[in-house]
Amino acid sequence: MELLKQRILQDGKVLQGDILKVDSFINHQIDSKLAFEIGHEFYKRFSDAHIDKILTIETSGIAFALCAGIHFDVPVVFAKKQAGGNMSPEVYQGKVHSYTKQTDYTISVSRCFLRAGERVLIIDDFLANGQAVLGLMDIAEQAGAVVSGVGIVIEKGFQPGSQILHSLGVRLESLVVIDSFQDKNIIFREERKNEKKSTLHGFSGA
Amino acid sequence: MELLKQRILQDGKVLQGDILKVDSFINHQIDSKLAFEIGHEFYKRFSDAHIDKILTIETSGIAFALCAGIHFDVPVVFAKKQAGGNMSPEVYQGKVHSYTKQTDYTISVSRCFLRAGERVLIIDDFLANGQAVLGLMDIAEQAGAVVSGVGIVIEKGFQPGSQILHSLGVRLESLVVIDSFQDKNIIFREERKNEKKSTLHGFSGA
Repeated sequence: MELLKQRILQDGKVLQGDILKVDSFINHQIDSKLAFEIGHEFYKRFSDAHIDKILTIETSGIAFALCAGIHFDVPVVFAKKQAGGNMSPEVYQGKVHSYTKQTDYTISVSRCFLRAGERVLIIDDFLANGQAVLGLMDIAEQAGAVVSGVGIVIEKGFQPGSQILHSLGVRLESLVVIDSFQDKNIIFREERKNEKKSTLHGFSGA
Repeated sequence: MELLKQRILQDGKVLQGDILKVDSFINHQIDSKLAFEIGHEFYKRFSDAHIDKILTIETSGIAFALCAGIHFDVPVVFAKKQAGGNMSPEVYQGKVHSYTKQTDYTISVSRCFLRAGERVLIIDDFLANGQAVLGLMDIAEQAGAVVSGVGIVIEKGFQPGSQILHSLGVRLESLVVIDSFQDKNIIFREERKNEKKSTLHGFSGA
Protein backbone atom coordinates (compact mmCIF):
# COMPACT_ATOMS: atom_id res chain seq x y z
CA MET A 1 0.00 0.00 0.00
CA GLU A 2 1.98 2.92 -1.37
CA LEU A 3 0.20 5.59 0.69
CA LEU A 4 1.08 3.79 3.92
CA LYS A 5 4.65 3.16 2.79
CA GLN A 6 5.15 6.86 2.10
CA ARG A 7 3.65 7.79 5.47
CA ILE A 8 5.97 5.36 7.29
CA LEU A 9 8.97 6.86 5.45
CA GLN A 10 7.76 10.34 6.37
CA ASP A 11 6.75 9.88 10.03
CA GLY A 12 8.05 6.49 11.20
CA LYS A 13 11.09 6.39 13.46
CA VAL A 14 13.50 3.46 13.75
CA LEU A 15 14.66 2.91 17.32
CA GLN A 16 17.24 0.62 18.92
CA GLY A 17 16.35 -3.08 18.66
CA ASP A 18 14.54 -2.90 15.30
CA ILE A 19 11.61 -1.02 16.82
CA LEU A 20 9.54 1.02 14.36
CA LYS A 21 7.83 3.92 16.11
CA VAL A 22 4.61 4.84 14.31
CA ASP A 23 2.70 6.26 17.28
CA SER A 24 2.09 9.57 15.48
CA PHE A 25 -0.38 7.96 13.02
CA ILE A 26 -0.95 4.26 13.91
CA ASN A 27 -0.95 3.28 17.58
CA HIS A 28 -1.28 6.28 19.90
CA GLN A 29 -2.33 9.12 17.64
CA ILE A 30 -4.30 7.69 14.70
CA ASP A 31 -4.66 9.34 11.28
CA SER A 32 -8.41 8.78 10.85
CA LYS A 33 -8.52 9.06 7.07
CA LEU A 34 -5.47 6.81 6.66
CA ALA A 35 -7.11 4.25 8.97
CA PHE A 36 -10.25 4.44 6.82
CA GLU A 37 -8.20 3.85 3.66
CA ILE A 38 -6.42 0.96 5.36
CA GLY A 39 -9.83 -0.56 6.09
CA HIS A 40 -10.76 -0.11 2.44
CA GLU A 41 -7.50 -1.76 1.33
CA PHE A 42 -8.25 -4.79 3.53
CA TYR A 43 -11.69 -4.93 1.94
CA LYS A 44 -10.20 -4.90 -1.56
CA ARG A 45 -7.75 -7.67 -0.69
CA PHE A 46 -10.30 -9.96 1.00
CA SER A 47 -13.48 -8.99 -0.88
CA ASP A 48 -13.65 -12.54 -2.32
CA ALA A 49 -13.45 -14.21 1.10
CA HIS A 50 -17.11 -13.75 2.18
CA ILE A 51 -16.08 -12.46 5.60
CA ASP A 52 -18.73 -12.68 8.34
CA LYS A 53 -16.79 -11.07 11.17
CA ILE A 54 -13.58 -9.20 11.93
CA LEU A 55 -11.55 -10.36 14.93
CA THR A 56 -8.80 -8.30 16.52
CA ILE A 57 -7.13 -7.74 19.87
CA GLU A 58 -7.12 -4.66 22.05
CA THR A 59 -5.82 -2.01 21.84
CA SER A 60 -4.10 -0.84 18.67
CA GLY A 61 -5.78 -3.33 16.34
CA ILE A 62 -9.25 -1.94 17.02
CA ALA A 63 -9.08 1.16 14.79
CA PHE A 64 -8.05 -0.81 11.68
CA ALA A 65 -10.39 -3.72 12.38
CA LEU A 66 -13.26 -1.25 12.73
CA CYS A 67 -12.42 0.53 9.48
CA ALA A 68 -12.32 -2.86 7.75
CA GLY A 69 -15.63 -3.75 9.40
CA ILE A 70 -17.22 -0.58 8.00
CA HIS A 71 -16.21 -1.54 4.45
CA PHE A 72 -17.16 -5.22 4.83
CA ASP A 73 -20.29 -4.18 6.75
CA VAL A 74 -19.70 -6.90 9.36
CA PRO A 75 -19.31 -6.76 13.16
CA VAL A 76 -15.90 -6.36 14.78
CA VAL A 77 -14.99 -8.36 17.88
CA PHE A 78 -11.91 -7.46 19.90
CA ALA A 79 -10.29 -9.97 22.24
CA LYS A 80 -9.64 -8.58 25.72
CA LYS A 81 -6.30 -8.91 27.43
CA GLN A 82 -6.30 -10.23 30.96
CA ALA A 83 -3.69 -10.34 33.68
CA GLY A 84 -5.02 -13.53 35.27
CA GLY A 85 -5.83 -16.70 33.39
CA ASN A 86 -8.81 -18.11 35.32
CA MET A 87 -10.94 -19.97 32.80
CA SER A 88 -14.58 -18.89 32.59
CA PRO A 89 -17.18 -21.07 30.87
CA GLU A 90 -18.59 -18.04 28.99
CA VAL A 91 -15.37 -17.05 27.21
CA TYR A 92 -12.90 -18.58 24.82
CA GLN A 93 -9.36 -17.92 26.01
CA GLY A 94 -5.99 -18.01 24.31
CA LYS A 95 -2.45 -17.59 25.56
CA VAL A 96 -0.20 -15.00 23.95
CA HIS A 97 3.53 -14.81 24.56
CA SER A 98 4.99 -11.29 24.40
CA TYR A 99 8.65 -11.35 23.34
CA THR A 100 8.92 -7.62 24.06
CA LYS A 101 7.75 -8.03 27.65
CA GLN A 102 8.98 -11.64 28.01
CA THR A 103 5.68 -12.68 29.54
CA ASP A 104 2.51 -14.62 28.70
CA TYR A 105 -0.92 -13.06 28.88
CA THR A 106 -4.41 -14.39 28.32
CA ILE A 107 -6.87 -13.03 25.75
CA SER A 108 -10.60 -13.67 25.95
CA VAL A 109 -13.62 -13.47 23.68
CA SER A 110 -17.21 -14.02 24.85
CA ARG A 111 -18.52 -17.28 23.43
CA CYS A 112 -21.66 -15.61 22.11
CA PHE A 113 -19.66 -13.44 19.69
CA LEU A 114 -17.96 -16.23 17.72
CA ARG A 115 -20.06 -18.94 16.08
CA ALA A 116 -19.20 -22.24 14.44
CA GLY A 117 -18.77 -21.83 10.69
CA GLU A 118 -18.35 -18.04 10.75
CA ARG A 119 -15.70 -16.82 8.30
CA VAL A 120 -13.39 -14.65 10.35
CA LEU A 121 -10.83 -12.09 9.17
CA ILE A 122 -8.17 -11.42 11.81
CA ILE A 123 -6.76 -7.88 11.69
CA ASP A 124 -3.87 -6.40 13.65
CA ASP A 125 -1.59 -3.39 13.33
CA PHE A 126 1.75 -5.26 13.53
CA LEU A 127 3.01 -8.74 12.70
CA ALA A 128 6.37 -9.68 14.19
CA ASN A 129 6.50 -13.06 15.95
CA GLY A 130 2.85 -13.77 15.21
CA GLN A 131 1.94 -14.67 18.77
CA ALA A 132 -1.12 -12.41 19.00
CA VAL A 133 -2.50 -13.76 15.71
CA LEU A 134 -1.88 -17.35 16.85
CA GLY A 135 -3.80 -16.61 20.07
CA LEU A 136 -6.71 -15.22 18.04
CA MET A 137 -6.61 -18.24 15.68
CA ASP A 138 -6.73 -20.54 18.70
CA ILE A 139 -9.85 -18.73 19.97
CA ALA A 140 -11.49 -18.87 16.51
CA GLU A 141 -10.75 -22.60 16.35
CA GLN A 142 -12.27 -23.20 19.79
CA ALA A 143 -15.45 -21.54 18.47
CA GLY A 144 -15.43 -23.68 15.32
CA ALA A 145 -15.07 -20.51 13.25
CA VAL A 146 -13.03 -20.47 10.03
CA VAL A 147 -10.08 -18.09 9.80
CA SER A 148 -10.45 -16.94 6.18
CA GLY A 149 -7.50 -14.59 6.36
CA VAL A 150 -5.17 -12.42 8.38
CA GLY A 151 -4.76 -8.74 7.51
CA ILE A 152 -1.78 -6.87 8.90
CA VAL A 153 -1.02 -3.17 8.59
CA ILE A 154 2.77 -3.40 9.05
CA GLU A 155 4.67 -6.71 8.85
CA LYS A 156 8.24 -7.04 10.04
CA GLY A 157 9.29 -9.48 7.33
CA PHE A 158 12.55 -10.28 9.08
CA GLN A 159 10.74 -11.77 12.09
CA PRO A 160 9.17 -15.25 12.02
CA GLY A 161 5.46 -14.35 12.19
CA SER A 162 4.71 -14.56 8.47
CA GLN A 163 6.62 -17.83 8.03
CA ILE A 164 4.70 -19.38 10.91
CA LEU A 165 1.37 -18.28 9.43
CA HIS A 166 2.29 -19.43 5.90
CA SER A 167 3.42 -22.80 7.28
CA LEU A 168 -0.09 -23.10 8.75
CA GLY A 169 -1.61 -22.34 5.34
CA VAL A 170 -3.04 -19.03 6.49
CA ARG A 171 -3.93 -16.46 3.83
CA LEU A 172 -1.90 -13.45 4.96
CA GLU A 173 -2.14 -9.94 3.52
CA SER A 174 0.27 -7.36 4.93
CA LEU A 175 -0.23 -3.84 3.60
CA VAL A 176 3.47 -3.12 3.93
CA VAL A 177 6.31 -5.55 4.63
CA ILE A 178 9.57 -4.29 6.09
CA ASP A 179 12.51 -6.47 5.07
CA SER A 180 15.11 -4.76 7.23
CA PHE A 181 16.31 -1.62 8.93
CA GLN A 182 19.68 -0.39 7.64
CA ASP A 183 21.27 2.48 9.57
CA LYS A 184 17.80 3.65 10.67
CA ASN A 185 16.60 3.43 7.05
CA ILE A 186 13.50 1.34 6.38
CA ILE A 187 13.86 -1.22 3.57
CA PHE A 188 10.44 -2.28 2.26
CA ARG A 189 9.70 -5.49 0.38
CA GLU A 190 8.66 -4.73 -3.20
CA GLU A 191 4.95 -4.03 -3.70
CA ARG A 192 2.75 -6.73 -5.22
CA LYS A 193 2.36 -5.91 -8.91
CA ASN A 194 -1.45 -6.10 -8.87
CA GLU A 195 -1.94 -3.81 -5.91
CA LYS A 196 -3.86 -0.63 -6.69
CA LYS A 197 -3.71 2.56 -4.67
CA SER A 198 -6.55 2.76 -2.16
CA THR A 199 -8.97 5.65 -2.52
CA LEU A 200 -11.77 7.11 -0.45
CA HIS A 201 -14.17 6.88 -3.43
CA GLY A 202 -17.78 7.37 -2.44
CA PHE A 203 -16.89 8.60 1.04
CA SER A 204 -17.97 12.17 1.62
CA GLY A 205 -16.17 12.53 4.91
CA ALA A 206 -18.67 14.88 6.47
CA MET B 1 -30.10 9.40 18.62
CA GLU B 2 -33.15 7.30 17.84
CA LEU B 3 -31.25 4.54 16.01
CA LEU B 4 -29.03 3.97 19.04
CA LYS B 5 -31.96 4.11 21.44
CA GLN B 6 -33.78 1.42 19.47
CA ARG B 7 -30.65 -0.75 19.37
CA ILE B 8 -30.18 -0.45 23.15
CA LEU B 9 -33.82 -1.45 23.67
CA GLN B 10 -33.34 -4.39 21.30
CA ASP B 11 -29.96 -5.73 22.44
CA GLY B 12 -29.03 -4.03 25.73
CA LYS B 13 -29.33 -6.03 28.95
CA VAL B 14 -29.87 -4.52 32.39
CA LEU B 15 -27.91 -6.35 35.08
CA GLN B 16 -27.79 -6.10 38.87
CA GLY B 17 -26.39 -2.79 40.13
CA ASP B 18 -27.69 -0.59 37.29
CA ILE B 19 -25.23 -2.12 34.82
CA LEU B 20 -26.23 -1.83 31.15
CA LYS B 21 -24.67 -4.62 29.11
CA VAL B 22 -24.13 -3.49 25.50
CA ASP B 23 -21.18 -5.71 24.66
CA SER B 24 -22.98 -7.20 21.64
CA PHE B 25 -22.71 -3.90 19.68
CA ILE B 26 -20.69 -1.30 21.67
CA ASN B 27 -17.80 -2.52 23.80
CA HIS B 28 -16.76 -6.07 22.93
CA GLN B 29 -18.48 -6.82 19.65
CA ILE B 30 -18.93 -3.54 17.75
CA ASP B 31 -21.58 -2.88 15.10
CA SER B 32 -19.34 -1.19 12.52
CA LYS B 33 -22.05 0.69 10.64
CA LEU B 34 -23.68 1.85 13.88
CA ALA B 35 -20.29 3.07 15.10
CA PHE B 36 -19.86 4.96 11.82
CA GLU B 37 -23.28 6.58 12.24
CA ILE B 38 -22.42 7.47 15.82
CA GLY B 39 -19.29 9.20 14.51
CA HIS B 40 -21.44 11.09 12.03
CA GLU B 41 -23.87 12.11 14.78
CA PHE B 42 -20.99 13.52 16.84
CA TYR B 43 -19.88 15.44 13.77
CA LYS B 44 -23.36 16.92 13.30
CA ARG B 45 -23.55 17.96 16.93
CA PHE B 46 -20.08 19.56 17.08
CA SER B 47 -19.64 20.68 13.45
CA ASP B 48 -19.62 24.33 14.65
CA ALA B 49 -16.82 23.73 17.19
CA HIS B 50 -13.83 23.78 14.77
CA ILE B 51 -12.40 20.60 16.31
CA ASP B 52 -8.67 20.01 15.72
CA LYS B 53 -8.32 16.66 17.48
CA ILE B 54 -10.35 13.90 19.10
CA LEU B 55 -9.19 12.64 22.48
CA THR B 56 -10.38 9.38 24.02
CA ILE B 57 -9.21 6.65 26.38
CA GLU B 58 -8.47 3.01 25.65
CA THR B 59 -10.21 0.68 25.06
CA SER B 60 -13.87 1.02 24.26
CA GLY B 61 -13.79 4.72 23.40
CA ILE B 62 -11.46 4.18 20.44
CA ALA B 63 -14.00 2.89 17.90
CA PHE B 64 -16.35 5.87 18.36
CA ALA B 65 -13.56 8.43 18.59
CA LEU B 66 -12.15 7.07 15.33
CA CYS B 67 -15.51 7.20 13.55
CA ALA B 68 -15.90 10.80 14.72
CA GLY B 69 -12.34 11.49 13.55
CA ILE B 70 -13.17 10.20 10.06
CA HIS B 71 -16.11 12.63 9.76
CA PHE B 72 -14.22 15.58 11.27
CA ASP B 73 -11.11 14.56 9.28
CA VAL B 74 -8.88 15.13 12.32
CA PRO B 75 -6.46 12.85 14.18
CA VAL B 76 -7.58 10.73 17.12
CA VAL B 77 -5.41 10.37 20.21
CA PHE B 78 -6.19 7.73 22.81
CA ALA B 79 -4.86 7.99 26.35
CA LYS B 80 -3.16 4.83 27.57
CA LYS B 81 -3.97 3.23 30.90
CA GLN B 82 -1.09 2.39 33.15
CA ALA B 83 -0.79 0.33 36.33
CA GLY B 84 2.05 2.38 37.76
CA GLY B 85 2.09 6.15 38.04
CA ASN B 86 5.76 7.04 37.55
CA MET B 87 5.82 10.43 35.90
CA SER B 88 7.75 10.67 32.64
CA PRO B 89 8.78 14.02 31.18
CA GLU B 90 7.50 12.99 27.73
CA VAL B 91 3.90 12.30 28.73
CA TYR B 92 1.01 14.13 30.30
CA GLN B 93 -0.58 12.00 32.98
CA GLY B 94 -3.93 12.09 34.71
CA LYS B 95 -5.43 10.10 37.56
CA VAL B 96 -8.74 8.32 37.07
CA HIS B 97 -10.76 6.84 39.91
CA SER B 98 -12.76 3.74 39.00
CA TYR B 99 -15.86 3.36 41.20
CA THR B 100 -16.54 -0.06 39.69
CA LYS B 101 -13.10 -1.39 40.62
CA GLN B 102 -12.64 0.96 43.61
CA THR B 103 -9.13 1.84 42.48
CA ASP B 104 -7.19 4.70 40.89
CA TYR B 105 -5.29 4.29 37.64
CA THR B 106 -3.07 6.59 35.62
CA ILE B 107 -3.71 7.58 32.00
CA SER B 108 -0.99 8.99 29.77
CA VAL B 109 -0.74 10.90 26.49
CA SER B 110 2.55 11.68 24.75
CA ARG B 111 3.25 15.39 24.96
CA CYS B 112 3.87 15.62 21.21
CA PHE B 113 0.26 14.68 20.42
CA LEU B 114 -1.47 17.50 22.30
CA ARG B 115 -0.57 21.11 21.55
CA ALA B 116 -1.41 24.39 23.25
CA GLY B 117 -4.47 26.01 21.69
CA GLU B 118 -5.74 22.85 19.96
CA ARG B 119 -9.52 22.50 20.13
CA VAL B 120 -10.14 19.03 21.49
CA LEU B 121 -13.31 16.95 21.44
CA ILE B 122 -13.31 14.26 24.12
CA ILE B 123 -15.26 11.13 23.15
CA ASP B 124 -16.12 8.11 25.27
CA ASP B 125 -18.63 5.27 25.14
CA PHE B 126 -20.12 5.74 28.62
CA LEU B 127 -20.58 8.61 31.07
CA ALA B 128 -21.41 7.62 34.64
CA ASN B 129 -19.31 9.30 37.33
CA GLY B 130 -17.31 11.26 34.78
CA GLN B 131 -13.93 10.30 36.18
CA ALA B 132 -12.40 9.22 32.84
CA VAL B 133 -13.52 12.46 31.17
CA LEU B 134 -12.11 14.51 34.06
CA GLY B 135 -8.77 12.69 33.68
CA LEU B 136 -8.74 13.49 29.96
CA MET B 137 -9.68 17.12 30.64
CA ASP B 138 -6.80 17.34 33.13
CA ILE B 139 -4.40 16.08 30.45
CA ALA B 140 -5.77 18.51 27.84
CA GLU B 141 -5.37 21.36 30.34
CA GLN B 142 -1.75 20.36 31.06
CA ALA B 143 -1.11 20.63 27.30
CA GLY B 144 -2.80 24.03 27.10
CA ALA B 145 -5.39 22.55 24.74
CA VAL B 146 -9.01 23.72 24.79
CA VAL B 147 -11.72 21.15 25.51
CA SER B 148 -14.39 22.31 23.04
CA GLY B 149 -16.78 19.55 23.95
CA VAL B 150 -17.42 16.11 25.32
CA GLY B 151 -19.31 13.54 23.23
CA ILE B 152 -20.75 10.48 24.96
CA VAL B 153 -22.45 7.51 23.35
CA ILE B 154 -24.49 6.42 26.40
CA GLU B 155 -24.96 8.63 29.47
CA LYS B 156 -26.29 7.27 32.73
CA GLY B 157 -28.25 10.39 33.63
CA PHE B 158 -28.88 9.20 37.16
CA GLN B 159 -25.15 9.23 37.99
CA PRO B 160 -23.25 12.46 38.74
CA GLY B 161 -20.98 12.66 35.65
CA SER B 162 -23.11 15.06 33.60
CA GLN B 163 -23.78 17.38 36.57
CA ILE B 164 -20.05 17.55 37.30
CA LEU B 165 -19.27 18.40 33.65
CA HIS B 166 -22.08 20.98 33.42
CA SER B 167 -20.90 22.60 36.66
CA LEU B 168 -17.51 23.00 34.95
CA GLY B 169 -19.19 24.67 31.96
CA VAL B 170 -18.35 21.80 29.63
CA ARG B 171 -20.38 21.45 26.43
CA LEU B 172 -21.69 17.89 26.73
CA GLU B 173 -23.53 15.95 24.03
CA SER B 174 -24.77 12.49 24.96
CA LEU B 175 -26.35 10.54 22.10
CA VAL B 176 -28.68 8.80 24.52
CA VAL B 177 -29.33 9.57 28.18
CA ILE B 178 -30.72 6.88 30.46
CA ASP B 179 -32.75 8.37 33.31
CA SER B 180 -33.34 5.13 35.18
CA PHE B 181 -33.75 1.39 35.08
CA GLN B 182 -37.15 0.18 36.27
CA ASP B 183 -37.55 -3.60 36.68
CA LYS B 184 -34.91 -4.17 34.01
CA ASN B 185 -36.66 -1.67 31.71
CA ILE B 186 -34.57 1.21 30.34
CA ILE B 187 -36.11 4.65 30.75
CA PHE B 188 -34.55 7.15 28.32
CA ARG B 189 -34.58 10.91 28.71
CA GLU B 190 -36.69 12.55 26.01
CA GLU B 191 -34.86 13.26 22.73
CA ARG B 192 -33.77 16.83 22.00
CA LYS B 193 -36.41 18.36 19.73
CA ASN B 194 -33.91 19.51 17.09
CA GLU B 195 -32.08 16.21 16.74
CA LYS B 196 -32.29 14.65 13.29
CA LYS B 197 -31.81 10.98 12.52
CA SER B 198 -28.23 10.26 11.49
CA THR B 199 -27.71 8.86 8.00
CA LEU B 200 -24.82 7.34 6.11
CA HIS B 201 -25.34 9.79 3.21
CA GLY B 202 -22.44 9.87 0.80
CA PHE B 203 -20.88 6.74 2.27
CA SER B 204 -20.73 3.85 -0.16
CA GLY B 205 -19.73 1.31 2.47
CA ALA B 206 -18.03 -1.13 0.16
